[in-house]
Amino acid sequence: MMSLNKHTILGVTAAIFTATAVFAGGHNASPEQKAVNARQAHMGLYSFNLGILGGMAKGDVEYNADVAMAAASDLAALATMTQANYWMPGTSSDDMESSRALPNGWTDYEDAIEKSKGLAMAAVAMKDAAGTLEGVRGAIGAVGGACGACHKVYRKPNS
Amino acid sequence: MMSLNKHTILGVTAAIFTATAVFAGGHNASPEQKAVNARQAHMGLYSFNLGILGGMAKGDVEYNADVAMAAASDLAALATMTQANYWMPGTSSDDMESSRALPNGWTDYEDAIEKSKGLAMAAVAMKDAAGTLEGVRGAIGAVGGACGACHKVYRKPNS
Repeated sequence: MMSLNKHTILGVTAAIFTATAVFAGGHNASPEQKAVNARQAHMGLYSFNLGILGGMAKGDVEYNADVAMAAASDLAALATMTQANYWMPGTSSDDMESSRALPNGWTDYEDAIEKSKGLAMAAVAMKDAAGTLEGVRGAIGAVGGACGACHKVYRKPNS
Repeated sequence: MMSLNKHTILGVTAAIFTATAVFAGGHNASPEQKAVNARQAHMGLYSFNLGILGGMAKGDVEYNADVAMAAASDLAALATMTQANYWMPGTSSDDMESSRALPNGWTDYEDAIEKSKGLAMAAVAMKDAAGTLEGVRGAIGAVGGACGACHKVYRKPNS
């Protein structure tokens, strides 16, 4: 086992600081802002993968099984992550200008978790289906529906 | 199976467009820029989770087993994702100002993949260890080392 000394810790800290700099607010951000940044990065990765699959489903982009399966695999991995540390109290749209997460996501926590499970199920179904274009087309409605089900209730509309 | 009609596709597209807007460049970005944004979001999520674990290892933040295990679980999920669609050709630091991924990441592809497997192994070991503070301290050096091993060779230094 690697022993933990001051040098190791400093090295890890440096790596963290460098990596964090890609986020708005960077490593000097508050814990709350870091949590909001992480949520938005996670949502952005949903969008990246769903954008690939949606483009193929619509026929805007030619279907490619390897690309579709990689996107669906990553989507399923993202949707089944715990994300527990992202949703810290004090990070709702009432608390922070940079947050669009409505306060009822915390007060109606169990329903919000149910909705996140809905996305996880739809994403895993997409992973199982993405080996064919017909499979992607059959699975994408449920994924988009699961995104919308949560956004409609727990995300502040664009002003 | 849900049938795919114009309404479904439009709904999914709307969901994608809204979600993508959180990224710099948003939904009008080129495929190359979207790939760079996705990589940077993914790196940011490594950083978020590693920041939590590093803070506990250093003693800056009090150790909490639930928080540590959630961070380690998400870190392991992220590190074992394929990410294949992020690394599209034409998105190196020679191609794009917004990219710090050196061209040798593509020419030395097999070594880069080996290094990514090193991070996956270290992250899974962290997941298995994060139930105690001693476990976090024992596992974090290898995670930070794996970050650095790739960054040192394949990431453009900050100018």
